[in-house]
Amino acid sequence: MKHLIDIKNLTTDDINQILARAGEFEKGIRKSNHINAHVATMFFENSTRTKMSFEMAINKLNARKYDFCAQTSSLNKGEDLYDTINNLSAIGINAVILRDSSDTLIKELSEKKYYEPISFINAGSGIAAHPTQALLDFYTMKKHFFDLANRVIVIVGDIAHSRVARSNIELLKRTGAKIRCLAPEYFVGEKIEGVEYYTDLKIAFEEADIIMALRIQKERIQEHVNFEDYIKNYQITRENLPYAAFLMHPGPINRGIEIESEVLEMQNAKTILTQARNGVFIRMAILDMLLSAQGL
Amino acid sequence: MKHLIDIKNLTTDDINQILARAGEFEKGIRKSNHINAHVATMFFENSTRTKMSFEMAINKLNARKYDFCAQTSSLNKGEDLYDTINNLSAIGINAVILRDSSDTLIKELSEKKYYEPISFINAGSGIAAHPTQALLDFYTMKKHFFDLANRVIVIVGDIAHSRVARSNIELLKRTGAKIRCLAPEYFVGEKIEGVEYYTDLKIAFEEADIIMALRIQKERIQEHVNFEDYIKNYQITRENLPYAAFLMHPGPINRGIEIESEVLEMQNAKTILTQARNGVFIRMAILDMLLSAQGL
Amino acid sequence: MKHLIDIKNLTTDDINQILARAGEFEKGIRKSNHINAHVATMFFENSTRTKMSFEMAINKLNARKYDFCAQTSSLNKGEDLYDTINNLSAIGINAVILRDSSDTLIKELSEKKYYEPISFINAGSGIAAHPTQALLDFYTMKKHFFDLANRVIVIVGDIAHSRVARSNIELLKRTGAKIRCLAPEYFVGEKIEGVEYYTDLKIAFEEADIIMALRIQKERIQEHVNFEDYIKNYQITRENLPYAAFLMHPGPINRGIEIESEVLEMQNAKTILTQARNGVFIRMAILDMLLSAQGL
Repeated sequence: MKHLIDIKNLTTDDINQILARAGEFEKGIRKSNHINAHVATMFFENSTRTKMSFEMAINKLNARKYDFCAQTSSLNKGEDLYDTINNLSAIGINAVILRDSSDTLIKELSEKKYYEPISFINAGSGIAAHPTQALLDFYTMKKHFFDLANRVIVIVGDIAHSRVARSNIELLKRTGAKIRCLAPEYFVGEKIEGVEYYTDLKIAFEEADIIMALRIQKERIQEHVNFEDYIKNYQITRENLPYAAFLMHPGPINRGIEIESEVLEMQNAKTILTQARNGVFIRMAILDMLLSAQGL
Repeated sequence: MKHLIDIKNLTTDDINQILARAGEFEKGIRKSNHINAHVATMFFENSTRTKMSFEMAINKLNARKYDFCAQTSSLNKGEDLYDTINNLSAIGINAVILRDSSDTLIKELSEKKYYEPISFINAGSGIAAHPTQALLDFYTMKKHFFDLANRVIVIVGDIAHSRVARSNIELLKRTGAKIRCLAPEYFVGEKIEGVEYYTDLKIAFEEADIIMALRIQKERIQEHVNFEDYIKNYQITRENLPYAAFLMHPGPINRGIEIESEVLEMQNAKTILTQARNGVFIRMAILDMLLSAQGL
Repeated sequence: MKHLIDIKNLTTDDINQILARAGEFEKGIRKSNHINAHVATMFFENSTRTKMSFEMAINKLNARKYDFCAQTSSLNKGEDLYDTINNLSAIGINAVILRDSSDTLIKELSEKKYYEPISFINAGSGIAAHPTQALLDFYTMKKHFFDLANRVIVIVGDIAHSRVARSNIELLKRTGAKIRCLAPEYFVGEKIEGVEYYTDLKIAFEEADIIMALRIQKERIQEHVNFEDYIKNYQITRENLPYAAFLMHPGPINRGIEIESEVLEMQNAKTILTQARNGVFIRMAILDMLLSAQGL
C-alpha cells in the first residue's frame, strides 16, 4: 500500500491488516515510533473530527506533524498545487493528508512523479470518497457484531452528496451485509448496485441492526431542499428508532435535523462517539503501514 | 481540582499548591512528564501572551498540543460547541484551554457529561473571569512583597469590563490587602464589596505599593468613551507614578492611553514583563495538577 | 553571530561555518539536540517553502516550534510589534523567524532591548534581503561547481523587486563569479555595483553556467507590466535554455511566465527542487549556530 485514496483500491488483505493493526493500537499491544517521519495535513475544507484524529494519530506514532495552511501559503501567489506538494516532498514531507472538494484531485496528484516518495491519504474528496471514515465505521460495526453477513444496515439521508455513504457501501458490499438506503427522491442520486432503496422510514427500519445517519451537508447542496418535509419523514426520533438498533453518524450532527436532539442522550447514540474514538486507531494503522512501507 | 473555571471555586489549599508548584517549576526543581496527555487550545478571542504561555507550558510538561481553529472547524458546518468538545474527549483530548466572549459558557460546558474525562481551563471568559492571569499576578506580587496584608494595591482603569480586575480582586480579598479601584464613573461598573473606590488619581496613589493598570478594551466597550478625558485624568505618567511603586499591567498595553509610553522604559515597568514570564510557571502548575488528577 | 539579518553582516568565516555545518547535517554526521530551545515563526507574508523548511529544521534539531499567528494575536488589539516580541522573550521564546513586507523592520527590531536574549532570523524582508535563500542557493551551486570563481551566473527577471537577487548578488560578489543580470528596463531597478546588465537574452545566456530565474512577484509590482512582452523576450524555454546550464528558481514558479512549463520536466530543472531540499540543511545550520550561541 503506497497511498490511501479509495476503498476500491484496497485488497481484502489490506483491509484486514488495517483492522488488525487498529485493534493492536487500541489494546496498546503495538508500539510504533516514526520519529523520522514528517506528515502534513492539508485541509481545504472544514474539519474537526478527521483533522484532530489524524493529528492525534501522528502524535501517538511519534511522527512530526505539519499543518499546511492554504490561506498563508504560496498558493496565494499562484503556485500550482502539484508544484507545492513536489516542493514539500523535496523539503522532506513523507505523507500528505488531503481533504478537498474535488472528487478526483487526490487520485490525479497521487499518480504524478515527485522528487522524493510521498504518500497521499484521502481525508475526504468531494462527494466521492472518505475511506478512513468508512474504515473506522467498519471497525466499529465489526467490533460489535463480529460478522456483518446478513446484518441489516440502513443508511439514511442525503446519499447523493455523501462521500461517507459511498465509501461505506463500497466496504459493506464485501461483507454480505444487507445494505438499505433510505432517502427522499431528492437525496437519492445515482443508484448504486447491490443496494436496496427505500423511501418509507418504517419499512426500511424493519429488522434493522444498524442505522447509519448521514449529515445534511448544506454546503454541498445546490438545489432547494424542503427541510420541513425531510424532518417530518426522515428524522430519526425516540419514537421511530428501533429499540436495539446501533445508531451511527459520521458527525458533525445537525441536531434537530437528521436526528432529534434527545436521541443523542439515549444509549443507542453512544456509538457515535465511539466512532470518533476508533478513528484514531484506524488512522494510526494507516499511517503506520504507509510510513513503514517507506522504511520510516 | 478537576477544572479551573474561576478563582471563587478555589480553596486556599488549591491556591497555595498552585503557587508552590509554580515556584518549583521556576526553580527547576520539579520535572513533570505528561507525554501521554493531549491538550487543546481553543481561543475564540485574540491572544498573544496567554496562548503562547499555555503553549510553552504544554511543551515544557512534554504534553502534546493541539490548536483547535474555529475558522476551519466543523463549527462552520453548524456543529454545537458541546458536541465538538464531546467528540474531542472521545478522540482523546484530556484538557481544553478555552477563551471566549461569554461570561458563563465555560462553566456551563464544564458541568456537562463527556464521553471521557476532560478538564476545562479558563483562559478568559467574557468580562467575568481570567483566573490564570490573577494567579500569575498574585505569584508576581507575593514573590516581591511576600505578605500582601495591609499592602495598598490600586487597580486603575476600565474596571467595568475587566475580567482581570474581577479575578484579581477575588484573590486579593483573601490576603488582607487594601484594594483600591481608581476609575472614572463610566468605567466603574457594578461595585464590588471589600473594595474602596476612588475617582482622584492623586488620592488613590497615596501610599500605593502596587499600581495595577488595566487595558482599555476597545473591543468590549459599547458606550462612547472620552479618551481625551481618560488620558488627562487617569493615564499613568512619569510624573504621577509613585517612586517606589510596583507597576503591573496584564498586557497588551495601549501605549499612550493607560500608560505614557516613556514609563515603560522605567525600572518600575520591568514587572510587566516579569508577569508574562511568571505566567508560564503558573500555567505549568495548573496543567500539571489537572493532568495528574486524571492519572496522566 | 547573534542574528541573521542580511548577508552584508556575515563574515567569510560565518558563511563558511554555515555551509560546513549544513553539509554535516546533510550527511547526517552532525546531531544537535535543542530540546530546551523555543522558536517562533512569525510570517506576515505568504510562504510555503521557507516556512515549512524552517519548521522541519526546528523539528530535526528537536527544538520546540511555535507559530505566531498575526490574525489571532493581540496585534489586533493594537499592540506594538516590539512589545509583542518583548513579551515573547519574557515568556521564553529564544528565536523569532520573521517575514515581513518592510525592508528595514527586522533590523530595527533586532537592535532593541529585550527582557531576555532573543535571536532574529530574516525569512524575507520586503525587497531588501532574503539571506537564507541566498545561502541555500550558494550551497546548491557550490556543491555542484565547487569553485564559483569565473563561473557565469545569469540572474533573470524582476531584479528591481527581488530580495532574492539582492541577497544572492551580495554573496556571489565574494566569490569571483561573473554576475550578469538579464532584465527588461522596467525590471532593472537601481543598478548594483559589480554586476553586468543585459537586455538581450541570447547574449546574456552565452557561456552561462547557471541561470537563476526570479519569480515575477505580482504582489509587489505597482507599475503596469507588459507580461506578453516579458514572456516573448525573457521567458526561459526549451529552445533558449543552454544545454548544460544549471537552472535555478527560488519558487514559487509562475508556470508559463518566467519559465515555460515543459522546461520543468527537463533534467536541468531538477536543481530547483534540490534548492528546496538544501534549504532545510542551511536553516538547521543557522538555527543550530544561533541557539548554541545562546547556550541552548
